[in-house]
Amino acid sequence: MKLPMAESPGIARVRGVLSPVVTPFDAELRPDVRRFIRHCRWLLDQGVGLAVFGTNSEANSLCVAEKIALLEGLVDAGLPPERMMPGTGCCAFPDSVELTRAAVRLGCAGVLMLPPFYYKSVPDEGLFRSYAKIIEGVGDSRLRIYLYHIPPVSQVPITLALIERLLRVYPGTIAGIKDSSGDWNNTGSMLERFQPQGFDVFAGSETFLLATLRAGGAGCITATGNVNPAPIARLAREWSELETSEADRQQAALDAVRAAFQQFPMIPALKAAIAHYAADPGWVIVRPPLVELNDTQQRTLTRVLDSVGFSMPGP
Amino acid sequence: MKLPMAESPGIARVRGVLSPVVTPFDAELRPDVRRFIRHCRWLLDQGVGLAVFGTNSEANSLCVAEKIALLEGLVDAGLPPERMMPGTGCCAFPDSVELTRAAVRLGCAGVLMLPPFYYKSVPDEGLFRSYAKIIEGVGDSRLRIYLYHIPPVSQVPITLALIERLLRVYPGTIAGIKDSSGDWNNTGSMLERFQPQGFDVFAGSETFLLATLRAGGAGCITATGNVNPAPIARLAREWSELETSEADRQQAALDAVRAAFQQFPMIPALKAAIAHYAADPGWVIVRPPLVELNDTQQRTLTRVLDSVGFSMPGP
Repeated sequence: MKLPMAESPGIARVRGVLSPVVTPFDAELRPDVRRFIRHCRWLLDQGVGLAVFGTNSEANSLCVAEKIALLEGLVDAGLPPERMMPGTGCCAFPDSVELTRAAVRLGCAGVLMLPPFYYKSVPDEGLFRSYAKIIEGVGDSRLRIYLYHIPPVSQVPITLALIERLLRVYPGTIAGIKDSSGDWNNTGSMLERFQPQGFDVFAGSETFLLATLRAGGAGCITATGNVNPAPIARLAREWSELETSEADRQQAALDAVRAAFQQFPMIPALKAAIAHYAADPGWVIVRPPLVELNDTQQRTLTRVLDSVGFSMPGP
Repeated sequence: MKLPMAESPGIARVRGVLSPVVTPFDAELRPDVRRFIRHCRWLLDQGVGLAVFGTNSEANSLCVAEKIALLEGLVDAGLPPERMMPGTGCCAFPDSVELTRAAVRLGCAGVLMLPPFYYKSVPDEGLFRSYAKIIEGVGDSRLRIYLYHIPPVSQVPITLALIERLLRVYPGTIAGIKDSSGDWNNTGSMLERFQPQGFDVFAGSETFLLATLRAGGAGCITATGNVNPAPIARLAREWSELETSEADRQQAALDAVRAAFQQFPMIPALKAAIAHYAADPGWVIVRPPLVELNDTQQRTLTRVLDSVGFSMPGP
């Protein structure tokens, strides 16, 4: 079956590397917009886009009003919304509509949208209706939705059949996907079936960055983009001009840094690394139900990172 | 270790049977407060309390403002808040605080509180901090929290160690639990360890009603309380005065009705039954990601229910 192109003329599509930006909190656990803007500006300078309000942003520990205030804070500070892809998928569609409307109003390049994730084993028909209800509730032709497939956390998968149906009914709106399944067979199927029609496939981590790019994909949206942005962005930018062996060497170097972080709970580890390398201790704070790394873990993390030659230049 | 009593003088504790009240929607998927009040009034008349905004209420498909409006609608209509136990646990603690404050302000007997359910495999320390943050954010001695343990859906369990710690730190506030694990060993452990200290254990369905009551528990909070309330409430009220064989016979009759519903997705089936037996077709509507029963399923459901002698007197 031939599907319509998802591309619309005149709208630049996001490609390359985005970071699900970690969200700083103050001692009262309120979002710290000043630190947030500073970190986002640094990420942009390093060459990665801003997938604010992703899983690694503790987005689901923030209420809708907090997320809108943070997004407005970034735009008010002069950061470019065309490099932003905020996460806007909530359990209740009125929340998703409100947050998505704000993102469109502010000029964001797209939104990354979780399916409603409380009810499990729901039929594709119900997930289709969820996305349809939000698209129709937002009612704006500028809306670009990137589906968010992260079954290890959401426990609600986005199937190939659902993508096909959404692309058929909303070809101008359904723009791509972040595949955080960790299953390369699934990413490969999406790349083969949907990428040629302008449906941009982003790997869920830099582990599959080179493989995704070589298969025609758009890039990756990755947790470690918060701490290792420049080397990841560089590989995404230059891979096609590199010798195969050099590209593979760069990929292996990215993998080594990621492996160091994966020895710890990811979100507290990202924040501990920023706190240490930016000498800004307040960054360690997480909202419950997460818990910050303890002192021993923090010391072990930085020792392991130092041992693989990790650095964070000037965040 | 001896734990302090959770009982506080002067506050009547909810016992017996509560229904996680199904939420009616209009054709635009807006909550239908008129139908909601009518159903709640009928449930009270049948002898069950109102655990509005439970899993079976599609609570996580409603935003905070919708839930507060529905709760205010019930109280404004003269329904007794002392028989209400609204679900107030959200992913983000500011939402949980706002909704719980409203419940306390309106005089509800207690609240049924999910843990934050997006992040999985979180430590007990993080869940403890979640509940602590909400209790301190609400800051009201009238607050009574019933923990909501439903790992098949939330995927975030509430362990015995977490209960013990919460009871130790917040003995006047932590009032009990709904155990929807479906694991009688777990319910039994809670009944043995915590019920004697005034921590009220509710089974998550009437399947374990008699067993829970015989072990000293408080009752049950059950989906089918929406459609079969009087017989369930009767067994909870009379069991201790019945011959063992008669109590067992009543339990078996309850089980037969439940088994009929369990052949279908529970929430759409409850709504289809109300639509049919109350001759009010609008009741079939669910919010996505759920999907209503199709015509064949609806006909099969009512045929199966008729065959076990089911009726809904005058809802």
